[in-house]
Amino acid sequence: MKAKSVGIGIVGLGRLGRRHAENLARYTPGAHLAAACSPLEAERQWARDHLPVQAIYADYAAVLADPAVEAVWLVTPTSLHPAQIIAALEAGKHVFCEKPLSLDLDECRQVTEVAARYPHLKVMIGFVRRFDASYRAAQARIEAGEIGRPFMVRSQTCDKNDPDGFFVQFAPTSGGIFLDCSVHDIDLARWMLGSPRAKRVYASGTIALHPGLAACQDVDNGVAICEFEGGQLAMFYASRTMAHGHDTQTEVIGTAGSVAVGRHARADRVEIADASGIRNTCTPSFYERFEDAFLREAQAFVAAVASAGPLPLSLDDALEATRIGIALRTSLQSGQPVVLG
Amino acid sequence: MKAKSVGIGIVGLGRLGRRHAENLARYTPGAHLAAACSPLEAERQWARDHLPVQAIYADYAAVLADPAVEAVWLVTPTSLHPAQIIAALEAGKHVFCEKPLSLDLDECRQVTEVAARYPHLKVMIGFVRRFDASYRAAQARIEAGEIGRPFMVRSQTCDKNDPDGFFVQFAPTSGGIFLDCSVHDIDLARWMLGSPRAKRVYASGTIALHPGLAACQDVDNGVAICEFEGGQLAMFYASRTMAHGHDTQTEVIGTAGSVAVGRHARADRVEIADASGIRNTCTPSFYERFEDAFLREAQAFVAAVASAGPLPLSLDDALEATRIGIALRTSLQSGQPVVLG
Amino acid sequence: MKAKSVGIGIVGLGRLGRRHAENLARYTPGAHLAAACSPLEAERQWARDHLPVQAIYADYAAVLADPAVEAVWLVTPTSLHPAQIIAALEAGKHVFCEKPLSLDLDECRQVTEVAARYPHLKVMIGFVRRFDASYRAAQARIEAGEIGRPFMVRSQTCDKNDPDGFFVQFAPTSGGIFLDCSVHDIDLARWMLGSPRAKRVYASGTIALHPGLAACQDVDNGVAICEFEGGQLAMFYASRTMAHGHDTQTEVIGTAGSVAVGRHARADRVEIADASGIRNTCTPSFYERFEDAFLREAQAFVAAVASAGPLPLSLDDALEATRIGIALRTSLQSGQPVVLG
Amino acid sequence: MKAKSVGIGIVGLGRLGRRHAENLARYTPGAHLAAACSPLEAERQWARDHLPVQAIYADYAAVLADPAVEAVWLVTPTSLHPAQIIAALEAGKHVFCEKPLSLDLDECRQVTEVAARYPHLKVMIGFVRRFDASYRAAQARIEAGEIGRPFMVRSQTCDKNDPDGFFVQFAPTSGGIFLDCSVHDIDLARWMLGSPRAKRVYASGTIALHPGLAACQDVDNGVAICEFEGGQLAMFYASRTMAHGHDTQTEVIGTAGSVAVGRHARADRVEIADASGIRNTCTPSFYERFEDAFLREAQAFVAAVASAGPLPLSLDDALEATRIGIALRTSLQSGQPVVLG
Repeated sequence: MKAKSVGIGIVGLGRLGRRHAENLARYTPGAHLAAACSPLEAERQWARDHLPVQAIYADYAAVLADPAVEAVWLVTPTSLHPAQIIAALEAGKHVFCEKPLSLDLDECRQVTEVAARYPHLKVMIGFVRRFDASYRAAQARIEAGEIGRPFMVRSQTCDKNDPDGFFVQFAPTSGGIFLDCSVHDIDLARWMLGSPRAKRVYASGTIALHPGLAACQDVDNGVAICEFEGGQLAMFYASRTMAHGHDTQTEVIGTAGSVAVGRHARADRVEIADASGIRNTCTPSFYERFEDAFLREAQAFVAAVASAGPLPLSLDDALEATRIGIALRTSLQSGQPVVLG
Repeated sequence: MKAKSVGIGIVGLGRLGRRHAENLARYTPGAHLAAACSPLEAERQWARDHLPVQAIYADYAAVLADPAVEAVWLVTPTSLHPAQIIAALEAGKHVFCEKPLSLDLDECRQVTEVAARYPHLKVMIGFVRRFDASYRAAQARIEAGEIGRPFMVRSQTCDKNDPDGFFVQFAPTSGGIFLDCSVHDIDLARWMLGSPRAKRVYASGTIALHPGLAACQDVDNGVAICEFEGGQLAMFYASRTMAHGHDTQTEVIGTAGSVAVGRHARADRVEIADASGIRNTCTPSFYERFEDAFLREAQAFVAAVASAGPLPLSLDDALEATRIGIALRTSLQSGQPVVLG
Repeated sequence: MKAKSVGIGIVGLGRLGRRHAENLARYTPGAHLAAACSPLEAERQWARDHLPVQAIYADYAAVLADPAVEAVWLVTPTSLHPAQIIAALEAGKHVFCEKPLSLDLDECRQVTEVAARYPHLKVMIGFVRRFDASYRAAQARIEAGEIGRPFMVRSQTCDKNDPDGFFVQFAPTSGGIFLDCSVHDIDLARWMLGSPRAKRVYASGTIALHPGLAACQDVDNGVAICEFEGGQLAMFYASRTMAHGHDTQTEVIGTAGSVAVGRHARADRVEIADASGIRNTCTPSFYERFEDAFLREAQAFVAAVASAGPLPLSLDDALEATRIGIALRTSLQSGQPVVLG
Repeated sequence: MKAKSVGIGIVGLGRLGRRHAENLARYTPGAHLAAACSPLEAERQWARDHLPVQAIYADYAAVLADPAVEAVWLVTPTSLHPAQIIAALEAGKHVFCEKPLSLDLDECRQVTEVAARYPHLKVMIGFVRRFDASYRAAQARIEAGEIGRPFMVRSQTCDKNDPDGFFVQFAPTSGGIFLDCSVHDIDLARWMLGSPRAKRVYASGTIALHPGLAACQDVDNGVAICEFEGGQLAMFYASRTMAHGHDTQTEVIGTAGSVAVGRHARADRVEIADASGIRNTCTPSFYERFEDAFLREAQAFVAAVASAGPLPLSLDDALEATRIGIALRTSLQSGQPVVLG
């Protein structure tokens, strides 16, 4: 409890980066912000104004050179992840990196290989749902055998529609809807089913509201079937056009029962009854839905670093989720199933 | 199955009367409409146009004189109930009578006494909720001991607000909110708790939207506590001002669990998700909520008549519900608890 | 209201046939059972004992020869449907036929062609969910534009597991899980989406509990994606292995909202709270879930016959549902998407 | 953000005290534990082992003498509250005190009077539900006029049964079920209704499972009606014998709608479907239900101290809640309504 605090270097101070930074600075016992880093002066100024942080850097190299930084916390563009992770490992730092690991399988494998050379360093990709209390409770029930043998997962990640379509401009670098959204569901499905590898996938999709996506062969609503090597199945649905809010749901079906998480998308415990009926409101975005999980994620990573204990998920998990996500995109674009080796 | 059909004489063809008439004429195997009776020509004309009925009368006496009528079905003003029931019994007819039996305890007792003289004739007051599938399932669970010893009931009858306040003009003869609405909850509470007698009640209320009720010392929202002789308790809530629809709920609490009926007021199995959140609509009135129960009620009465079998509730049940309802009204008006002998 | 009653000849008196017979005999105003037919003496005896029916036949030909029969009501093995429908039409009878029309597309087309020659005769396949109050309310909302342009349907038909696997012996003639179960979801999806034709489908599945299905290349859990010509999508899930009961759900997603039917599988309005938490029970089988819809279906068909009015669904709808179901089975068995012409 | 941190002296390190201590030490930005105090060595040892705290005391006087302590945080027996609050104020310390303020009205008034002499010092009683996100959202909707004029509150505090009846031994000093449990509902009702004063109350109750309560005229299930001066009503239910968990619910009914909080008692977003139906689990105790609210409560108090800003509730609110709670107990024991001056 009174152990030495872990010095964290947060890298990237955009919207999500700021939230990670505040979680680490204020609500993660056993950790402190040793450094904050952004190439943008405005973001560095925000850090000066708002964060209890020892050093603020413009360059990632400076973070790695800072001996007070024991772990880097990457909330940077996906294209930078592989090089930044490898550089951190070579500098002797633990690494937390926001998902996805990379959009390129070779890069994923390269990171995995480098990480294997530094077994004393922790590397974790931020599959935040693994830290959500409800998902953890569901997984524990499944592991305890409460639903018999789980053989199917149905999982969705559905975002509230942004009428301005702001996300469309990021579509070319997002990896497409399956790598950007469904990657969470893919990881969840594998977690719930005992970490099987995929053997064949098929995907389809449609553009409901954002025709600009056509230019990069992306869709705003995608559906997919994933067959695993052990015979298990998963169905995924990802949408960017929900009217009612962020709606993430997952159902795991077993031979003796099923467990569902999030079937009732609701912001809180409030119900309003009026002339329109009885209603509840929904979480507006993934952040409100997983706010507590982001905190637990930070606490879990810091605890693993401090105790040199195991992490709840491996780089291989991240690699397999990426591999499946890429196959789904290929299937969407080709109209053919993709067989994974 | 091919037994002789029971000839029914429906008396009263207002809105609810017409629905009873159609249920009896079309959806109650083993029964047929032998006669329909109304003092109003318009209602008789409706019967001629819509009902497969053998005889149509303006006078109740004619119904009683018709040998094809084996049972009368009274959907008449409450003030007429006692005399009509007694006359029917004396004419050798079985009687179904819409609730309440009477607003006057002496009249209730008089009916009970007369009925006792005709043990071969069936008399049933229409506590329709006893025939609702959900209430029946709940009562069966309780009787089977699933919640241990039941010791408390919380029950509400809440009607959708009528902005025109049409019901206010009937307030002087309705008996007040507790005799008109809560009498159902009182009967349910006794049914669920094993038919105890009340020993003390307390009631309060407020006028939220319909000031016209003040003239007859009535309220549009009433609350009450009822203590039974066995130590059980009940809380009642009756409202005429709901914004969202008709909302009837009952919870029975026992030493090992509880059973709730209707906690989710919903019209059907539909949910709508849109910018306002996720919502369901509610049944607009008691009729939509209990449409199926009205049918089962008719079928149960007819079956009891046809088989000379027992009815699910007795005139004593109706009398005790009235006794408690009157005490609640007295308490509301006096501000004091009322002790029942 | 007092119009001539339609004489129905019920053909097939198995479990579902008996329920249709009782609905038609007792709860369908404007209809009566003119005849009942079964090749089995035991079923005919049941009819003698339980049904108010004018004639009981062992041979279908006798039903068609009976002038009191205006419409036949076929609850017979699927393989008999096409010939029986055609014979009925040629005998001048209206036809109600339980789903599916046929497992063979050519037969479906042949029936459609014959029916076209008798435009004054009604022919309806029993897609019972179109008569469910909740599905009707959902469809009405969609048609009214409440969810914008509907572009995706997710629908499931999940049956409670039969530990005896009784259904496995019928698997060879059932057409497989998609033609037996998902055909309802296919029809619903088309109804909700404005009756589009499919252009490509993909299916997969697994055997969770009933290995005997492997012999006929069937599965006990199947998943599918269906792409329609207008760009709409559907995802289907069918299961025969649910632990908790029959669970039919459908969600229709549009550009301005979504409508879900049956998201909360529940038998009634009861909730039980005890040491295991708060729970509701589920409808055990499709019949309890759609009991009321079966009745409305009968009433709707009879009303259409009596009034010579339009039916809510056409033979072309049944044909298209079969066409898609067959394509799904082909995809399941080949592992390849199937393109529909 | 980088303002001076508020030094807190936690007093009382029992189960709830420890949780407050950890919240203040680790998750309340802007505060730190300057001191911890307990008369029990075991509790002080726990503090040494687990808390980042500057000083640990056996005597309350030492806390008050410590200049590093700016605010005391009292999680002590109710009988000590008044004297401890007054002593703290006289020592120039801000005060947070767990509910209830006192079981004695004169003591409440004395505290209020003393506090009035120190307007620069903050005193807050821990009505934790005012800090729950759902209750806050509900109150905000009401204040915004979404349900019209609120006129009725129904609120319950129901604890999971403790089969060992451990709480019975505390019954003599708890103040009885209404002061111990319903005081939260009373405070909520006043908050939601615009802080009216009560004018008449009536209470009843029963002993369902814990006969030992009879000795101190307490019950394990209590019900009450509270009439407010503005004509608003409240119904309360408190239980110590729930089988399914802690179940706190509140409904506020207005002229244009209603808002309910907690109608679905659920531990998380998980649902389990198996042979027993579909169920969710419930929070086992008030702490799990209000864990987040305890944290927000600490943060709100600290923020008010740091900014010299207003507190969300006043000592008068605490006094009025106690006044109503005492009247309910009097009514329970006398069987008569109690009129409040």
